[in-house]
Amino acid sequence: MPVAGNVALGRDVAIKYPDLVNLYGCVIGDETSIGPFVEIQCNSVIGRRCKIGSHSFICEGVVIEDGVMVAHGVMFTNDRYPRATRPDGRLRAMGDWQLERTFVRRGASIGSNVTILCGLTIGAGALVAAGSVVVQDVPEHAVVAGNPARIIGDVRDRLQQEAVA
Amino acid sequence: MPVAGNVALGRDVAIKYPDLVNLYGCVIGDETSIGPFVEIQCNSVIGRRCKIGSHSFICEGVVIEDGVMVAHGVMFTNDRYPRATRPDGRLRAMGDWQLERTFVRRGASIGSNVTILCGLTIGAGALVAAGSVVVQDVPEHAVVAGNPARIIGDVRDRLQQEAVA
Amino acid sequence: MPVAGNVALGRDVAIKYPDLVNLYGCVIGDETSIGPFVEIQCNSVIGRRCKIGSHSFICEGVVIEDGVMVAHGVMFTNDRYPRATRPDGRLRAMGDWQLERTFVRRGASIGSNVTILCGLTIGAGALVAAGSVVVQDVPEHAVVAGNPARIIGDVRDRLQQEAVA
Repeated sequence: MPVAGNVALGRDVAIKYPDLVNLYGCVIGDETSIGPFVEIQCNSVIGRRCKIGSHSFICEGVVIEDGVMVAHGVMFTNDRYPRATRPDGRLRAMGDWQLERTFVRRGASIGSNVTILCGLTIGAGALVAAGSVVVQDVPEHAVVAGNPARIIGDVRDRLQQEAVA
Repeated sequence: MPVAGNVALGRDVAIKYPDLVNLYGCVIGDETSIGPFVEIQCNSVIGRRCKIGSHSFICEGVVIEDGVMVAHGVMFTNDRYPRATRPDGRLRAMGDWQLERTFVRRGASIGSNVTILCGLTIGAGALVAAGSVVVQDVPEHAVVAGNPARIIGDVRDRLQQEAVA
Repeated sequence: MPVAGNVALGRDVAIKYPDLVNLYGCVIGDETSIGPFVEIQCNSVIGRRCKIGSHSFICEGVVIEDGVMVAHGVMFTNDRYPRATRPDGRLRAMGDWQLERTFVRRGASIGSNVTILCGLTIGAGALVAAGSVVVQDVPEHAVVAGNPARIIGDVRDRLQQEAVA
Protein backbone atom coordinates (compact mmCIF):
# COMPACT_ATOMS: atom_id res chain seq x y z
CA MET A 1 0.00 0.00 0.00
CA PRO A 2 2.43 2.68 -1.15
CA VAL A 3 0.19 5.67 -0.35
CA ALA A 4 0.34 5.43 3.42
CA GLY A 5 -2.67 6.15 5.58
CA ASN A 6 -0.87 9.03 7.23
CA VAL A 7 -0.64 11.11 4.05
CA ALA A 8 -2.74 14.28 4.18
CA LEU A 9 -4.13 14.31 0.64
CA GLY A 10 -5.86 17.47 -0.55
CA ARG A 11 -8.87 17.67 -2.83
CA ASP A 12 -8.53 16.39 -6.41
CA VAL A 13 -4.97 15.14 -6.02
CA ALA A 14 -4.12 13.08 -9.12
CA ILE A 15 -2.03 9.95 -8.58
CA LYS A 16 -2.62 7.83 -11.64
CA TYR A 17 -0.81 4.75 -10.32
CA PRO A 18 -1.01 4.62 -6.52
CA ASP A 19 0.79 1.27 -6.56
CA LEU A 20 3.84 2.79 -8.28
CA VAL A 21 4.59 5.54 -5.76
CA ASN A 22 5.79 5.63 -2.16
CA LEU A 23 4.21 8.42 -0.12
CA TYR A 24 4.17 8.55 3.67
CA GLY A 25 3.69 11.14 6.37
CA CYS A 26 3.54 14.08 3.94
CA VAL A 27 1.03 16.78 3.02
CA ILE A 28 -0.13 17.06 -0.62
CA GLY A 29 -2.13 20.15 -1.64
CA ASP A 30 -5.30 20.38 -3.71
CA GLU A 31 -5.16 19.66 -7.45
CA THR A 32 -1.55 18.50 -7.35
CA SER A 33 -0.54 15.65 -9.66
CA ILE A 34 2.07 13.00 -8.90
CA GLY A 35 3.62 10.74 -11.53
CA PRO A 36 4.80 7.14 -11.20
CA PHE A 37 8.03 6.06 -9.47
CA VAL A 38 7.89 9.00 -7.06
CA GLU A 39 8.85 8.87 -3.39
CA ILE A 40 7.70 11.60 -1.01
CA GLN A 41 8.90 11.18 2.57
CA CYS A 42 7.44 12.15 5.91
CA ASN A 43 7.55 15.73 7.16
CA SER A 44 7.55 17.18 3.65
CA VAL A 45 4.89 19.51 2.29
CA ILE A 46 3.72 19.91 -1.31
CA GLY A 47 1.47 22.88 -2.12
CA ARG A 48 -1.57 23.23 -4.32
CA ARG A 49 -1.53 22.87 -8.12
CA CYS A 50 1.96 21.44 -8.21
CA LYS A 51 3.17 18.86 -10.69
CA ILE A 52 5.56 16.22 -9.44
CA GLY A 53 6.99 14.32 -12.41
CA SER A 54 7.91 10.66 -12.57
CA HIS A 55 11.09 9.36 -10.90
CA SER A 56 11.40 12.31 -8.50
CA PHE A 57 12.41 12.02 -4.86
CA ILE A 58 11.24 14.52 -2.25
CA CYS A 59 12.79 13.87 1.11
CA GLU A 60 11.95 14.71 4.67
CA GLY A 61 12.18 18.41 5.40
CA VAL A 62 11.37 19.75 1.93
CA VAL A 63 8.66 22.41 1.64
CA ILE A 64 7.25 23.11 -1.82
CA GLU A 65 4.83 26.00 -2.16
CA ASP A 66 1.88 26.36 -4.56
CA GLY A 67 2.17 26.11 -8.31
CA VAL A 68 5.60 24.50 -8.44
CA MET A 69 6.71 22.21 -11.25
CA VAL A 70 9.09 19.43 -10.21
CA ALA A 71 9.95 17.66 -13.44
CA HIS A 72 11.30 14.10 -13.78
CA GLY A 73 14.18 12.50 -11.92
CA VAL A 74 14.61 15.44 -9.54
CA MET A 75 16.49 14.58 -6.33
CA PHE A 76 16.23 16.66 -3.17
CA THR A 77 18.61 16.03 -0.27
CA ASN A 78 18.57 16.76 3.45
CA ASP A 79 21.91 15.56 4.81
CA ARG A 80 25.13 17.42 4.07
CA TYR A 81 27.38 14.51 5.05
CA PRO A 82 25.49 11.32 4.30
CA ARG A 83 26.81 8.21 5.98
CA ALA A 84 25.39 4.71 6.34
CA THR A 85 26.96 4.10 9.73
CA ARG A 86 28.16 5.88 12.84
CA PRO A 87 31.85 6.00 13.72
CA ASP A 88 31.32 2.93 15.92
CA GLY A 89 30.15 1.00 12.86
CA ARG A 90 26.49 0.74 13.81
CA LEU A 91 23.75 1.90 11.45
CA ARG A 92 23.03 5.60 11.69
CA ALA A 93 19.59 6.46 13.02
CA MET A 94 17.60 9.61 13.73
CA GLY A 95 19.62 11.78 16.06
CA ASP A 96 22.93 10.75 14.53
CA TRP A 97 22.65 13.34 11.78
CA GLN A 98 21.28 16.84 11.27
CA LEU A 99 18.44 17.40 8.81
CA GLU A 100 18.71 20.56 6.71
CA ARG A 101 15.48 21.87 5.20
CA THR A 102 14.91 23.09 1.65
CA PHE A 103 12.25 25.50 0.41
CA VAL A 104 10.88 25.88 -3.10
CA ARG A 105 8.87 29.09 -3.33
CA ARG A 106 5.64 29.71 -5.21
CA GLY A 107 5.62 29.17 -8.96
CA ALA A 108 9.20 27.94 -9.33
CA SER A 109 10.14 25.17 -11.76
CA ILE A 110 12.79 22.48 -11.29
CA GLY A 111 13.89 20.79 -14.52
CA SER A 112 14.43 17.09 -15.05
CA ASN A 113 17.40 15.29 -13.46
CA VAL A 114 18.15 18.30 -11.26
CA THR A 115 19.94 17.72 -7.94
CA ILE A 116 19.30 20.13 -5.08
CA LEU A 117 21.73 20.22 -2.17
CA CYS A 118 20.24 20.71 1.26
CA GLY A 119 19.58 23.82 3.30
CA LEU A 120 18.70 25.96 0.26
CA THR A 121 15.85 28.11 -0.98
CA ILE A 122 14.69 28.23 -4.61
CA GLY A 123 13.04 31.63 -5.04
CA ALA A 124 9.54 32.31 -6.32
CA GLY A 125 9.17 31.89 -10.06
CA ALA A 126 12.76 30.71 -10.54
CA LEU A 127 13.62 28.18 -13.21
CA VAL A 128 16.33 25.55 -12.62
CA ALA A 129 17.43 24.16 -15.99
CA ALA A 130 17.35 20.42 -16.55
CA GLY A 131 20.45 18.56 -15.36
CA SER A 132 21.63 21.30 -13.00
CA VAL A 133 23.16 20.77 -9.58
CA VAL A 134 21.99 23.51 -7.20
CA VAL A 135 24.52 24.30 -4.46
CA GLN A 136 23.38 27.76 -3.36
CA ASP A 137 20.16 29.72 -3.01
CA VAL A 138 18.42 30.67 -6.26
CA PRO A 139 17.01 34.22 -6.36
CA GLU A 140 13.40 34.91 -7.32
CA HIS A 141 12.73 34.67 -11.06
CA ALA A 142 16.33 33.64 -11.82
CA VAL A 143 17.17 31.08 -14.48
CA VAL A 144 20.06 28.89 -13.33
CA ALA A 145 21.95 26.12 -15.13
CA GLY A 146 25.06 23.97 -14.84
CA ASN A 147 27.03 22.04 -12.23
CA PRO A 148 27.30 24.01 -10.04
CA ALA A 149 24.22 25.95 -11.15
CA ARG A 150 24.86 29.60 -11.99
CA ILE A 151 22.48 32.39 -12.96
CA ILE A 152 22.12 32.62 -16.75
CA GLY A 153 19.12 34.91 -17.01
CA ASP A 154 15.80 36.10 -15.67
CA VAL A 155 12.58 34.23 -16.32
CA ARG A 156 10.75 37.48 -17.00
CA ASP A 157 12.94 38.19 -20.02
CA ARG A 158 12.07 34.81 -21.51
CA LEU A 159 8.47 34.15 -20.71
CA GLN A 160 6.23 36.95 -21.86
CA GLN A 161 3.42 35.42 -19.86
CA GLU A 162 5.41 35.79 -16.67
CA ALA A 163 5.85 39.51 -17.20
CA VAL A 164 2.11 39.98 -17.15
CA ALA A 165 1.38 37.47 -14.43
CA MET B 1 -2.28 -2.07 -15.94
CA PRO B 2 0.79 0.04 -16.72
CA VAL B 3 1.20 -1.12 -20.34
CA ALA B 4 -1.82 0.66 -21.77
CA GLY B 5 -3.99 -0.94 -24.42
CA ASN B 6 -3.13 1.86 -26.86
CA VAL B 7 0.57 0.94 -27.03
CA ALA B 8 1.61 -0.38 -30.46
CA LEU B 9 3.96 -3.18 -29.42
CA GLY B 10 6.14 -4.76 -32.09
CA ARG B 11 7.11 -8.40 -32.33
CA ASP B 12 9.27 -9.90 -29.56
CA VAL B 13 9.34 -6.78 -27.41
CA ALA B 14 10.85 -7.72 -24.04
CA ILE B 15 9.31 -6.11 -20.97
CA LYS B 16 10.32 -8.30 -18.09
CA TYR B 17 8.13 -6.58 -15.49
CA PRO B 18 5.05 -5.08 -17.17
CA ASP B 19 3.72 -4.02 -13.75
CA LEU B 20 6.81 -1.89 -13.12
CA VAL B 21 6.61 0.33 -16.21
CA ASN B 22 4.23 3.00 -17.45
CA LEU B 23 3.74 2.95 -21.21
CA TYR B 24 0.87 4.62 -23.03
CA GLY B 25 0.08 5.80 -26.53
CA CYS B 26 3.55 5.03 -27.89
CA VAL B 27 5.03 2.80 -30.60
CA ILE B 28 7.67 0.20 -29.64
CA GLY B 29 9.58 -1.56 -32.43
CA ASP B 30 10.37 -5.26 -32.85
CA GLU B 31 12.92 -6.90 -30.52
CA THR B 32 13.26 -3.84 -28.31
CA SER B 33 13.75 -4.41 -24.58
CA ILE B 34 12.47 -2.16 -21.81
CA GLY B 35 13.70 -2.29 -18.21
CA PRO B 36 11.79 -1.68 -14.99
CA PHE B 37 10.81 1.79 -13.70
CA VAL B 38 10.53 3.18 -17.24
CA GLU B 39 7.89 5.64 -18.41
CA ILE B 40 7.23 6.10 -22.14
CA GLN B 41 4.60 8.69 -22.94
CA CYS B 42 2.11 9.04 -25.77
CA ASN B 43 3.18 10.25 -29.20
CA SER B 44 6.70 8.90 -28.81
CA VAL B 45 8.25 6.29 -31.09
CA ILE B 46 10.94 3.73 -30.23
CA GLY B 47 12.56 1.82 -33.11
CA ARG B 48 13.56 -1.79 -33.53
CA ARG B 49 16.30 -3.52 -31.54
CA CYS B 50 16.61 -0.69 -29.03
CA LYS B 51 17.46 -1.14 -25.37
CA ILE B 52 15.71 1.15 -22.91
CA GLY B 53 17.38 0.81 -19.51
CA SER B 54 15.74 1.01 -16.11
CA HIS B 55 14.67 4.35 -14.64
CA SER B 56 14.54 6.14 -18.00
CA PHE B 57 11.85 8.60 -19.03
CA ILE B 58 10.88 9.11 -22.66
CA CYS B 59 8.38 11.88 -23.05
CA GLU B 60 5.84 12.85 -25.65
CA GLY B 61 7.41 13.95 -28.92
CA VAL B 62 10.60 11.88 -28.75
CA VAL B 63 11.51 9.77 -31.78
CA ILE B 64 14.16 7.08 -31.33
CA GLU B 65 15.32 5.21 -34.42
CA ASP B 66 16.50 1.60 -34.72
CA GLY B 67 19.37 0.13 -32.73
CA VAL B 68 19.57 2.88 -30.10
CA MET B 69 20.81 2.26 -26.57
CA VAL B 70 19.16 4.39 -23.89
CA ALA B 71 20.93 3.46 -20.67
CA HIS B 72 19.61 3.96 -17.14
CA GLY B 73 18.11 7.10 -15.61
CA VAL B 74 18.04 8.98 -18.92
CA MET B 75 15.64 11.93 -18.97
CA PHE B 76 14.27 13.42 -22.16
CA THR B 77 12.39 16.73 -22.07
CA ASN B 78 9.89 18.47 -24.35
CA ASP B 79 9.16 21.85 -22.76
CA ARG B 80 11.73 24.63 -22.78
CA TYR B 81 10.01 26.61 -20.03
CA PRO B 82 8.25 24.14 -17.77
CA ARG B 83 5.60 25.58 -15.48
CA ALA B 84 2.95 23.96 -13.32
CA THR B 85 0.45 26.77 -13.76
CA ARG B 86 -0.61 29.49 -16.18
CA PRO B 87 -0.12 33.14 -15.30
CA ASP B 88 -3.70 33.19 -13.96
CA GLY B 89 -2.75 30.51 -11.45
CA ARG B 90 -4.73 27.68 -13.01
CA LEU B 91 -3.07 24.39 -13.91
CA ARG B 92 -1.39 24.41 -17.30
CA ALA B 93 -2.97 22.11 -19.86
CA MET B 94 -2.33 21.14 -23.47
CA GLY B 95 -2.33 24.29 -25.55
CA ASP B 96 -0.75 26.35 -22.80
CA TRP B 97 2.75 25.27 -23.79
CA GLN B 98 4.70 24.35 -26.90
CA LEU B 99 6.07 20.85 -27.29
CA GLU B 100 9.54 20.60 -28.85
CA ARG B 101 10.48 17.30 -30.44
CA THR B 102 13.73 15.39 -30.05
CA PHE B 103 15.25 12.85 -32.44
CA VAL B 104 17.79 10.12 -31.69
CA ARG B 105 19.15 8.72 -34.93
CA ARG B 106 19.99 5.13 -35.78
CA GLY B 107 22.58 3.35 -33.67
CA ALA B 108 23.25 6.15 -31.19
CA SER B 109 23.88 5.48 -27.49
CA ILE B 110 22.78 7.63 -24.55
CA GLY B 111 24.68 6.94 -21.31
CA SER B 112 23.20 6.61 -17.85
CA ASN B 113 21.83 9.66 -16.02
CA VAL B 114 22.03 11.75 -19.19
CA THR B 115 19.66 14.72 -19.54
CA ILE B 116 18.60 15.81 -23.03
CA LEU B 117 17.12 19.26 -23.50
CA CYS B 118 14.30 19.56 -25.98
CA GLY B 119 14.26 20.36 -29.67
CA LEU B 120 17.53 18.54 -30.38
CA THR B 121 18.86 15.79 -32.63
CA ILE B 122 21.38 13.17 -31.52
CA GLY B 123 23.13 12.03 -34.72
CA ALA B 124 23.45 8.47 -35.97
CA GLY B 125 26.03 6.40 -34.10
CA ALA B 126 26.79 9.17 -31.61
CA LEU B 127 27.72 8.37 -28.02
CA VAL B 128 26.60 10.62 -25.15
CA ALA B 129 28.75 9.89 -22.11
CA ALA B 130 27.07 9.01 -18.83
CA GLY B 131 26.04 12.00 -16.71
CA SER B 132 26.09 14.50 -19.59
CA VAL B 133 23.59 17.30 -20.12
CA VAL B 134 22.93 17.73 -23.84
CA VAL B 135 22.00 21.31 -24.79
CA GLN B 136 22.73 21.32 -28.53
CA ASP B 137 22.60 18.94 -31.47
CA VAL B 138 25.13 16.08 -31.42
CA PRO B 139 26.77 15.33 -34.81
CA GLU B 140 26.85 11.82 -36.25
CA HIS B 141 29.42 9.51 -34.60
CA ALA B 142 30.50 12.19 -32.12
CA VAL B 143 31.37 11.36 -28.52
CA VAL B 144 30.11 14.11 -26.20
CA ALA B 145 30.52 14.55 -22.45
CA GLY B 146 30.01 17.12 -19.69
CA ASN B 147 27.52 19.72 -18.55
CA PRO B 148 27.00 21.23 -21.05
CA ALA B 149 28.02 18.30 -23.25
CA ARG B 150 30.89 19.05 -25.63
CA ILE B 151 32.50 16.93 -28.33
CA ILE B 152 35.47 14.96 -26.97
CA GLY B 153 36.05 12.53 -29.83
CA ASP B 154 34.69 10.38 -32.60
CA VAL B 155 33.19 6.96 -31.97
CA ARG B 156 34.99 5.53 -35.00
CA ASP B 157 38.37 6.21 -33.42
CA ARG B 158 37.38 4.26 -30.31
CA LEU B 159 35.33 1.34 -31.45
CA GLN B 160 37.08 -0.77 -34.03
CA GLN B 161 33.82 -2.54 -34.69
CA GLU B 162 32.21 0.73 -35.69
CA ALA B 163 34.85 1.39 -38.32
CA VAL B 164 33.92 -1.80 -40.11
CA ALA B 165 30.17 -1.58 -39.55
CA MET C 1 8.24 -11.42 -7.97
CA PRO C 2 10.92 -8.73 -8.21
CA VAL C 3 13.20 -10.17 -5.50
CA ALA C 4 14.40 -13.19 -7.41
CA GLY C 5 14.94 -16.53 -5.70
CA ASN C 6 18.63 -16.44 -6.59
CA VAL C 7 19.36 -13.40 -4.40
CA ALA C 8 21.58 -14.21 -1.42
CA LEU C 9 19.90 -12.08 1.26
CA GLY C 10 21.73 -11.59 4.54
CA ARG C 11 20.18 -11.38 7.97
CA ASP C 12 17.84 -8.47 8.74
CA VAL C 13 17.93 -6.99 5.27
CA ALA C 14 15.24 -4.29 5.08
CA ILE C 15 13.31 -4.05 1.82
CA LYS C 16 10.14 -2.20 2.70
CA TYR C 17 8.46 -2.72 -0.66
CA PRO C 18 9.66 -5.96 -2.26
CA ASP C 19 7.22 -5.44 -5.13
CA LEU C 20 8.84 -2.11 -6.05
CA VAL C 21 12.41 -3.32 -6.54
CA ASN C 22 14.15 -5.58 -9.04
CA LEU C 23 16.90 -7.69 -7.49
CA TYR C 24 18.38 -10.79 -9.09
CA GLY C 25 21.52 -12.87 -8.78
CA CYS C 26 23.18 -10.54 -6.26
CA VAL C 27 24.48 -10.77 -2.70
CA ILE C 28 23.04 -8.41 -0.04
CA GLY C 29 24.80 -8.23 3.35
CA ASP C 30 23.31 -8.27 6.83
CA GLU C 31 21.35 -5.24 8.08
CA THR C 32 21.44 -3.48 4.72
CA SER C 33 18.37 -1.47 3.69
CA ILE C 34 17.09 -1.04 0.14
CA GLY C 35 14.60 1.63 -0.90
CA PRO C 36 11.89 1.48 -3.55
CA PHE C 37 12.55 1.70 -7.30
CA VAL C 38 15.97 0.10 -6.97
CA GLU C 39 17.48 -2.38 -9.42
CA ILE C 40 20.42 -4.55 -8.37
CA GLN C 41 21.71 -6.87 -11.08
CA CYS C 42 23.36 -10.25 -11.01
CA ASN C 43 27.00 -10.67 -10.07
CA SER C 44 27.00 -7.60 -7.86
CA VAL C 45 27.77 -7.63 -4.15
CA ILE C 46 26.45 -5.27 -1.45
CA GLY C 47 28.11 -5.41 1.98
CA ARG C 48 26.72 -5.26 5.49
CA ARG C 49 25.02 -2.20 7.00
CA CYS C 50 24.75 -0.38 3.70
CA LYS C 51 21.91 1.93 2.72
CA ILE C 52 20.76 1.83 -0.89
CA GLY C 53 18.42 4.76 -1.49
CA SER C 54 15.42 4.87 -3.78
CA HIS C 55 15.83 5.09 -7.57
CA SER C 56 19.40 3.74 -7.57
CA PHE C 57 20.77 1.28 -10.10
CA ILE C 58 23.58 -1.12 -9.25
CA CYS C 59 24.69 -3.09 -12.26
CA GLU C 60 26.50 -6.35 -12.82
CA GLY C 61 30.10 -6.25 -11.66
CA VAL C 62 29.77 -3.68 -8.88
CA VAL C 63 31.21 -4.54 -5.48
CA ILE C 64 30.13 -2.41 -2.52
CA GLU C 65 31.84 -3.04 0.82
CA ASP C 66 30.40 -2.67 4.33
CA GLY C 67 28.89 0.52 5.68
CA VAL C 68 28.44 2.28 2.35
CA MET C 69 25.72 4.86 1.71
CA VAL C 70 24.36 4.91 -1.82
CA ALA C 71 21.87 7.77 -1.85
CA HIS C 72 19.02 8.27 -4.32
CA GLY C 73 19.14 8.10 -8.10
CA VAL C 74 22.72 6.85 -8.18
CA MET C 75 23.71 5.14 -11.45
CA PHE C 76 26.61 2.74 -11.75
CA THR C 77 27.83 1.61 -15.18
CA ASN C 78 29.82 -1.34 -16.48
CA ASP C 79 30.25 -0.77 -20.22
CA ARG C 80 32.58 1.90 -21.56
CA TYR C 81 31.04 1.91 -25.04
CA PRO C 82 27.38 0.99 -24.65
CA ARG C 83 25.64 -0.12 -27.83
CA ALA C 84 22.27 -1.73 -28.44
CA THR C 85 23.44 -3.72 -31.45
CA ARG C 86 26.52 -5.32 -32.98
CA PRO C 87 28.01 -3.95 -36.18
CA ASP C 88 25.96 -6.50 -38.13
CA GLY C 89 22.79 -4.95 -36.70
CA ARG C 90 21.82 -7.82 -34.43
CA LEU C 91 21.17 -7.25 -30.73
CA ARG C 92 24.31 -7.27 -28.60
CA ALA C 93 24.55 -10.14 -26.16
CA MET C 94 26.99 -11.36 -23.51
CA GLY C 95 30.38 -11.81 -25.16
CA ASP C 96 29.86 -8.87 -27.51
CA TRP C 97 31.08 -6.39 -24.92
CA GLN C 98 33.55 -6.19 -22.06
CA LEU C 99 32.31 -5.69 -18.51
CA GLU C 100 34.41 -3.34 -16.35
CA ARG C 101 34.06 -3.73 -12.60
CA THR C 102 33.67 -0.97 -10.02
CA PHE C 103 34.55 -1.07 -6.32
CA VAL C 104 33.19 1.09 -3.51
CA ARG C 105 35.33 0.64 -0.43
CA ARG C 106 34.23 0.46 3.20
CA GLY C 107 32.37 3.42 4.65
CA ALA C 108 32.22 5.55 1.50
CA SER C 109 29.15 7.64 0.63
CA ILE C 110 27.75 8.31 -2.84
CA GLY C 111 25.42 11.31 -3.01
CA SER C 112 22.11 11.51 -4.84
CA ASN C 113 21.98 11.58 -8.65
CA VAL C 114 25.67 10.66 -8.87
CA THR C 115 26.90 8.86 -12.01
CA ILE C 116 29.89 6.53 -11.72
CA LEU C 117 31.75 5.53 -14.88
CA CYS C 118 33.01 1.97 -15.03
CA GLY C 119 36.30 0.41 -14.05
CA LEU C 120 36.81 2.72 -11.05
CA THR C 121 37.41 2.47 -7.32
CA ILE C 122 35.84 4.80 -4.75
CA GLY C 123 38.18 4.76 -1.75
CA ALA C 124 37.27 3.94 1.83
CA GLY C 125 35.44 6.72 3.62
CA ALA C 126 35.28 8.93 0.52
CA LEU C 127 32.32 11.23 -0.08
CA VAL C 128 31.02 11.86 -3.61
CA ALA C 129 28.89 15.00 -3.58
CA ALA C 130 25.36 14.86 -4.94
CA GLY C 131 25.08 15.34 -8.70
CA SER C 132 28.71 14.48 -9.45
CA VAL C 133 29.95 12.45 -12.40
CA VAL C 134 32.89 10.28 -11.34
CA VAL C 135 35.34 9.58 -14.18
CA GLN C 136 38.46 8.56 -12.26
CA ASP C 137 39.37 6.79 -9.04
CA VAL C 138 38.50 8.61 -5.81
CA PRO C 139 41.17 8.43 -3.07
CA GLU C 140 40.36 7.32 0.47
CA HIS C 141 38.58 9.96 2.55
CA ALA C 142 38.47 12.43 -0.36
CA VAL C 143 35.47 14.68 -0.97
CA VAL C 144 34.83 15.02 -4.71
CA ALA C 145 32.28 17.12 -6.59
CA GLY C 146 31.41 18.29 -10.10
CA ASN C 147 31.26 16.98 -13.65
CA PRO C 148 33.87 15.64 -13.98
CA ALA C 149 34.25 15.11 -10.22
CA ARG C 150 37.37 16.71 -8.71
CA ILE C 151 38.77 16.60 -5.18
CA ILE C 152 37.48 19.51 -3.10
CA GLY C 153 38.52 18.39 0.36
CA ASP C 154 39.06 15.63 2.87
CA VAL C 155 36.22 14.08 4.81
CA ARG C 156 38.30 14.09 8.01
CA ASP C 157 38.45 17.89 7.97
CA ARG C 158 34.67 18.11 7.80
CA LEU C 159 33.30 15.35 9.95
CA GLN C 160 34.63 15.46 13.48
CA GLN C 161 33.19 12.02 14.02
CA GLU C 162 35.33 10.63 11.23
CA ALA C 163 38.50 11.92 12.83
CA VAL C 164 37.85 9.82 15.88
CA ALA C 165 36.47 6.82 14.08
